[in-house]
Amino acid sequence: MKIFDEVESEVQSYARSFPKVFCRAKGELLWDLDGNQYLDFLAGAGALNYGHNNALFKGALLDYIRADGITHGLDLHTKAKGEFLQTFSDNILAPRGMEYIIQFTGPTGTNAVEAAMKVARKVTGRQAIIAFTNGFHGVSLGSLTATGNSYHRDAAGILLSGTHRMPYDGYLGNGIDTTEYLDKALSDSSSGIGSPAAVIVETIQGEGGINSASIGWLRNLQSVCRKHELLLIVDDIQAGCGRTGDFFSFEEAGIEPDIITLSKSLGGYGLPIALVLMKPKLDQWKPGEHNGTFRGNSLAFVTAKAAIDHYWSDPSFSEDIKRKGSYISSRLNSIINQYGEGLLKSKGRGMFQGIDCVTGYLAKRVSEYAFEHQLIIETSGADDQVLKLLCPLTTSDQNLQGGIDIIEKAFQEVFAREENILQTMTNIDTCRI
Amino acid sequence: MKIFDEVESEVQSYARSFPKVFCRAKGELLWDLDGNQYLDFLAGAGALNYGHNNALFKGALLDYIRADGITHGLDLHTKAKGEFLQTFSDNILAPRGMEYIIQFTGPTGTNAVEAAMKVARKVTGRQAIIAFTNGFHGVSLGSLTATGNSYHRDAAGILLSGTHRMPYDGYLGNGIDTTEYLDKALSDSSSGIGSPAAVIVETIQGEGGINSASIGWLRNLQSVCRKHELLLIVDDIQAGCGRTGDFFSFEEAGIEPDIITLSKSLGGYGLPIALVLMKPKLDQWKPGEHNGTFRGNSLAFVTAKAAIDHYWSDPSFSEDIKRKGSYISSRLNSIINQYGEGLLKSKGRGMFQGIDCVTGYLAKRVSEYAFEHQLIIETSGADDQVLKLLCPLTTSDQNLQGGIDIIEKAFQEVFAREENILQTMTNIDTCRI
Amino acid sequence: MKIFDEVESEVQSYARSFPKVFCRAKGELLWDLDGNQYLDFLAGAGALNYGHNNALFKGALLDYIRADGITHGLDLHTKAKGEFLQTFSDNILAPRGMEYIIQFTGPTGTNAVEAAMKVARKVTGRQAIIAFTNGFHGVSLGSLTATGNSYHRDAAGILLSGTHRMPYDGYLGNGIDTTEYLDKALSDSSSGIGSPAAVIVETIQGEGGINSASIGWLRNLQSVCRKHELLLIVDDIQAGCGRTGDFFSFEEAGIEPDIITLSKSLGGYGLPIALVLMKPKLDQWKPGEHNGTFRGNSLAFVTAKAAIDHYWSDPSFSEDIKRKGSYISSRLNSIINQYGEGLLKSKGRGMFQGIDCVTGYLAKRVSEYAFEHQLIIETSGADDQVLKLLCPLTTSDQNLQGGIDIIEKAFQEVFAREENILQTMTNIDTCRI
Amino acid sequence: MKIFDEVESEVQSYARSFPKVFCRAKGELLWDLDGNQYLDFLAGAGALNYGHNNALFKGALLDYIRADGITHGLDLHTKAKGEFLQTFSDNILAPRGMEYIIQFTGPTGTNAVEAAMKVARKVTGRQAIIAFTNGFHGVSLGSLTATGNSYHRDAAGILLSGTHRMPYDGYLGNGIDTTEYLDKALSDSSSGIGSPAAVIVETIQGEGGINSASIGWLRNLQSVCRKHELLLIVDDIQAGCGRTGDFFSFEEAGIEPDIITLSKSLGGYGLPIALVLMKPKLDQWKPGEHNGTFRGNSLAFVTAKAAIDHYWSDPSFSEDIKRKGSYISSRLNSIINQYGEGLLKSKGRGMFQGIDCVTGYLAKRVSEYAFEHQLIIETSGADDQVLKLLCPLTTSDQNLQGGIDIIEKAFQEVFAREENILQTMTNIDTCRI
Repeated sequence: MKIFDEVESEVQSYARSFPKVFCRAKGELLWDLDGNQYLDFLAGAGALNYGHNNALFKGALLDYIRADGITHGLDLHTKAKGEFLQTFSDNILAPRGMEYIIQFTGPTGTNAVEAAMKVARKVTGRQAIIAFTNGFHGVSLGSLTATGNSYHRDAAGILLSGTHRMPYDGYLGNGIDTTEYLDKALSDSSSGIGSPAAVIVETIQGEGGINSASIGWLRNLQSVCRKHELLLIVDDIQAGCGRTGDFFSFEEAGIEPDIITLSKSLGGYGLPIALVLMKPKLDQWKPGEHNGTFRGNSLAFVTAKAAIDHYWSDPSFSEDIKRKGSYISSRLNSIINQYGEGLLKSKGRGMFQGIDCVTGYLAKRVSEYAFEHQLIIETSGADDQVLKLLCPLTTSDQNLQGGIDIIEKAFQEVFAREENILQTMTNIDTCRI
Repeated sequence: MKIFDEVESEVQSYARSFPKVFCRAKGELLWDLDGNQYLDFLAGAGALNYGHNNALFKGALLDYIRADGITHGLDLHTKAKGEFLQTFSDNILAPRGMEYIIQFTGPTGTNAVEAAMKVARKVTGRQAIIAFTNGFHGVSLGSLTATGNSYHRDAAGILLSGTHRMPYDGYLGNGIDTTEYLDKALSDSSSGIGSPAAVIVETIQGEGGINSASIGWLRNLQSVCRKHELLLIVDDIQAGCGRTGDFFSFEEAGIEPDIITLSKSLGGYGLPIALVLMKPKLDQWKPGEHNGTFRGNSLAFVTAKAAIDHYWSDPSFSEDIKRKGSYISSRLNSIINQYGEGLLKSKGRGMFQGIDCVTGYLAKRVSEYAFEHQLIIETSGADDQVLKLLCPLTTSDQNLQGGIDIIEKAFQEVFAREENILQTMTNIDTCRI
Repeated sequence: MKIFDEVESEVQSYARSFPKVFCRAKGELLWDLDGNQYLDFLAGAGALNYGHNNALFKGALLDYIRADGITHGLDLHTKAKGEFLQTFSDNILAPRGMEYIIQFTGPTGTNAVEAAMKVARKVTGRQAIIAFTNGFHGVSLGSLTATGNSYHRDAAGILLSGTHRMPYDGYLGNGIDTTEYLDKALSDSSSGIGSPAAVIVETIQGEGGINSASIGWLRNLQSVCRKHELLLIVDDIQAGCGRTGDFFSFEEAGIEPDIITLSKSLGGYGLPIALVLMKPKLDQWKPGEHNGTFRGNSLAFVTAKAAIDHYWSDPSFSEDIKRKGSYISSRLNSIINQYGEGLLKSKGRGMFQGIDCVTGYLAKRVSEYAFEHQLIIETSGADDQVLKLLCPLTTSDQNLQGGIDIIEKAFQEVFAREENILQTMTNIDTCRI
Repeated sequence: MKIFDEVESEVQSYARSFPKVFCRAKGELLWDLDGNQYLDFLAGAGALNYGHNNALFKGALLDYIRADGITHGLDLHTKAKGEFLQTFSDNILAPRGMEYIIQFTGPTGTNAVEAAMKVARKVTGRQAIIAFTNGFHGVSLGSLTATGNSYHRDAAGILLSGTHRMPYDGYLGNGIDTTEYLDKALSDSSSGIGSPAAVIVETIQGEGGINSASIGWLRNLQSVCRKHELLLIVDDIQAGCGRTGDFFSFEEAGIEPDIITLSKSLGGYGLPIALVLMKPKLDQWKPGEHNGTFRGNSLAFVTAKAAIDHYWSDPSFSEDIKRKGSYISSRLNSIINQYGEGLLKSKGRGMFQGIDCVTGYLAKRVSEYAFEHQLIIETSGADDQVLKLLCPLTTSDQNLQGGIDIIEKAFQEVFAREENILQTMTNIDTCRI
């Protein structure tokens, strides 16, 4: 531990909540240096949908390295990249009738978002992009302009420009479709919004507090974009790759984004990779205009291909996620019904769910209790008030049940232990319309 | 090949110069699907200083994967990270008397630059950053404001703000120390430059055309920064990790940057990783203020540690790079003396050298000839006019000689073949002061 | 006329609607070179509240010039400035219990807005300012960021940054108090709005289409500003100086803006002048930080003093404006009830009223008819769809009646003449929530 | 005086240096309330080239007001405007073979600069504008981005973007033509400067310290602009209207700017007015795109016309200015030769001259001494180190001599009184290349 205190930056975050040194991992389990075992409901913040070191992909990875396959190839054509492109095309795009061009960016989500925003501006010749309240798209400067969180925005130390902020689904209260406001502002030449290049949206705002847009709202959003000729960018970095039950989170809505970003679980094995999908007519990049040394991480191509081949060539995985999603829903609703006197709220859909604990204090207590009982689970939202279940999609039924049992017990204990906690939840100035 | 044409974006760049599908690599050699062997003087644009799939690190990587070591750990403490930090601290920082805090950013150079610029702004409370003509720091929006290349800048599609541009060493002609201009502008409250947060500089501008700052200029730059209380950021992503002969490219100058960025070859095996080094007093990050899913790529920790342990625990590797650097210098000078009638110029130092071919046309012809003879070598500079030798530092003497032989032959052939080429070199409007 | 075509810029606007050469003016009347007389319901776009060349001030102006009073004095203390300050302090500020510091900026509204925005940013140390849909604050770059009109914004040719746009009163439909949205966004640290420096608002948006904020909304806006420590800037350049019946347009709401801008009719005689009022604690300017050659137009001081002395030392003028305002309301309502089959709407309050004609086409036809009958009246709003009555506050009852008679006749004629006009009004896609 | 302390903002500047209340003025003379007479070598910071309340124009002004000529006419065609346009066209443009379109902006210099920068961006479709070290173009946000002074820039409280800064003539030392640097940076696609819309320049930087560009440099600047298709904007607000001896300050250089801004002395009588001259092909404004309430100040049209008719219909005035300019040169050189031991330097040309006192302290002492002896004279430059002679061009020979006599005496006294003053001048770290 000492070396971390000595030389690693204060910017550490998860390491503060879970102050152990981890050394081994498999599926939904982690072990620390003392041999303690943990159940992982954080799952790389959504980067480990297939669990840690998935045995199904491991052999392919080892074989590739052993055979001295290309590890680093810039953006050269490689066998590994070609095979990934083929399987992504055959198993993801084609069956869904999706015609998209694929761009590999530097292997992080924020790199993909940067590229998506750039190409949207470049193609349309317009500078502004619409982003939503509570959105999170990364912390490099371009992505950060679209991210809503002040904590991250203020760290830029510089004026953030180039976006207009609009209220996300539900932000103005029930019964108000915020896409109508967007439509009006875009129709009104004097609204101050002008003619933006694009809208960037998450179908479920993970970092924003597992805010899930309704299917209707997503469809209306697409209609407004089409009407006013804005490009629709879906940032599917956290919600995609099966988290909601479908490969893309927007499939249920039946929309066709102009641009899609993917990263996190795409690599399958927790390896960095990111890509941008765009409609063919948008692929107006000139050679190397957006570049980077690590575009296309070859080892990740190998495991990403294995993941798609194994999990996405038939509907069984998707069905299993939805089944587990229903289980999670029923368990969380049960907890909500038992504790918090009506103040707790369930959030999300599929295996992207959580409990709005109203206060960050309560959510933190629950997370702490869980960690004491070998369950790793984090919070999100503007005040870290949402307990976020993000376990691997491959989590066994037994471990899923066990994990939620700990969460349930945690709520029970915290409410029992702290008499005033309900009071603070009631007093909070929620400023909700 | 077909799949690349069908679904990969037009943004492809290197793949256009070297249109083969590569499948295997070792050291300085690459093989394509047809079994052809290539000598690699591109080396992942500086990401493969230790060659492809270095056998010395491969075992450690395979062992780690086989043992289910943590592959993806967000910013949790892991055994692999701890061991990397320890060896980096013991073998890189301590022997050089360098006291720095280490921040892992998303595993690309541009992520590290974004973090460096942010922390500089955050700590100083000032927004502007000084960047230099011909600098290249990446293409995400923050880094792009510091990058000089219009081709990349224009692709942003949005006004780039927050930097002031200053002339790099030599830009105003011989005999003019451009740090004096910087000093004057910073001393003059009416210069329009005000009080910036920092200066960001490469000691050798790789993408800018292998422009190498003199030792004296770097020292003066540091003095000007100290005098006016600007932070000095050295972007050592391409020039660091041994490329110039020392681990850091600025060691010869004896300067102490406030912030240093590293990436590219740091991972040792071509795996994505990036970090920011900063003086302890600058580590004013609050937890998670700059975050990202792939901070700290665990597999890269394993190979990065192996690389440092093997190559940087004694001076022999450094000495060998310098020896090879001298060899390269003498060979390039010989070429320059034979061809181009005094118009060609050598650029760079250590194993970061090249030939200024005056026109991009000539450099392209040489690169094409080389590729026809199984040598992969690229160009850089505003007009792609500089032939850039960036072979692995571990390249065997025989292959180093063989590669340069091809280059020499290329110049000979191109000048022989194309009678007008000298004329175009002479006519060019160089606009050089 | 010829000289205007030959050498004056295409940027001309009013001159296109009223293509005559004017030479003389008095009160609410104008004469052209051919001796034709016009009734002026445009009144310098609100700069002529006291009519043209008000005989009450003319003598003072002539005396001052004859006596070689200071015409141009930079920001030196002059007798004329001192006397203006005294009467403004005694007759405007003191009776209203208003304690404000006065800053003279360059003598245009946009200069005052620039200064107001600067001091708000400077004092708070925050960069962003909240502006509203359909707001108009001028077209110099700072003011333009707050202005909503795309036609003007696009003319900047550069990214406009530093403001967040919020919906004005009524923009989200009846029954929705948009200050609740503002409150929520300011309370929510992840809304993307952060902590702005200030809100800038017009109580009635003149250029935006005579949108009048309700008294309750203005009070709520002030409460939200106080709660979140934002400065409240009321841009009273068009609505102030008596236009609504009180000297300041916000008096009825009983709010106390932190900063107020005045210009247009302040000078009394149509002479350029502008000022910023700010709470004493906000006057943190250092000497000359905001400067300009024509701060404090001395001739305007003379007439501005005369205007305040004459019209604002007792309540009679205010009462008369309100009386005329009621008359205008009843006449406009009568027109609305007779024509347009329920589609026309009245806008505004006091002597700042108009008729929303739904389409710019109808409004234009009415304005043209009026001009053919010697009445000058203009339109405003995003589509120029609002006929804007902005006659001098000193207009005689007879001329007020006569002017509105022409307007009434105009609606009658236009609806009679053009059968399809109702159809186009019905078809319009209003995008109104 | 009390009212100024009580209610006028701390932003006051000149009033601090000359703390009297002034009430009357004529030619180069001012009187305060106590009847003291002052010689005015400040002259409205260049707004009173024809002196205070010039008797030649006064009658026309009084007549116009008496006859109820249009005082405020928005941008309507008026007789006064037409007559101004005719005389400006006939006496200024035509004799110089200048074909330009005239745009009236809000009546301040900064409004004209804002319009000039906007039209340059709009026409070219490019965002960046080149501005120079020590330039001053006003303090509204757009102009401020081009202004160099940190004191003014920092007051914006927001990131200033959209300009690149280049070194003015002489900034890099003697013998270096800084237009070569500009040429190189514009030729070099990787310089970070890209393709700006325009260059904005003062031929003599008044606020910057009376830095006078050489004729050769101005010509080279125009050549570089033509070569790279940048528009050349000459901000002639302070240096124009005869200050250098010609109506336009650039006439001697024989250049043809694409855009010219005029204000300050244009009105003739110290009345606010401003305009933009642009080549006909640049007049791509759409109606009202750049607007404002006080475009075209009618009273100023009357006096501006009188000024042009009287002073600019034959060369005698121009010759007289040049004669006086020579006299000023010889007197200033004599002072410089006598005092300061070679450290003082003369600046400027025509009647736009000054003495560089090295330190603001010395310049301030001289200015104070002068004011004690009834001479008003100010300083400029980054450290207020330049004593700035800006007397009316119509100053009598006797008063010109008398004023300079006081200045000479001031230097004599200050050097005699303060022994250490030379020491501080010698010690200063001038950071001059």
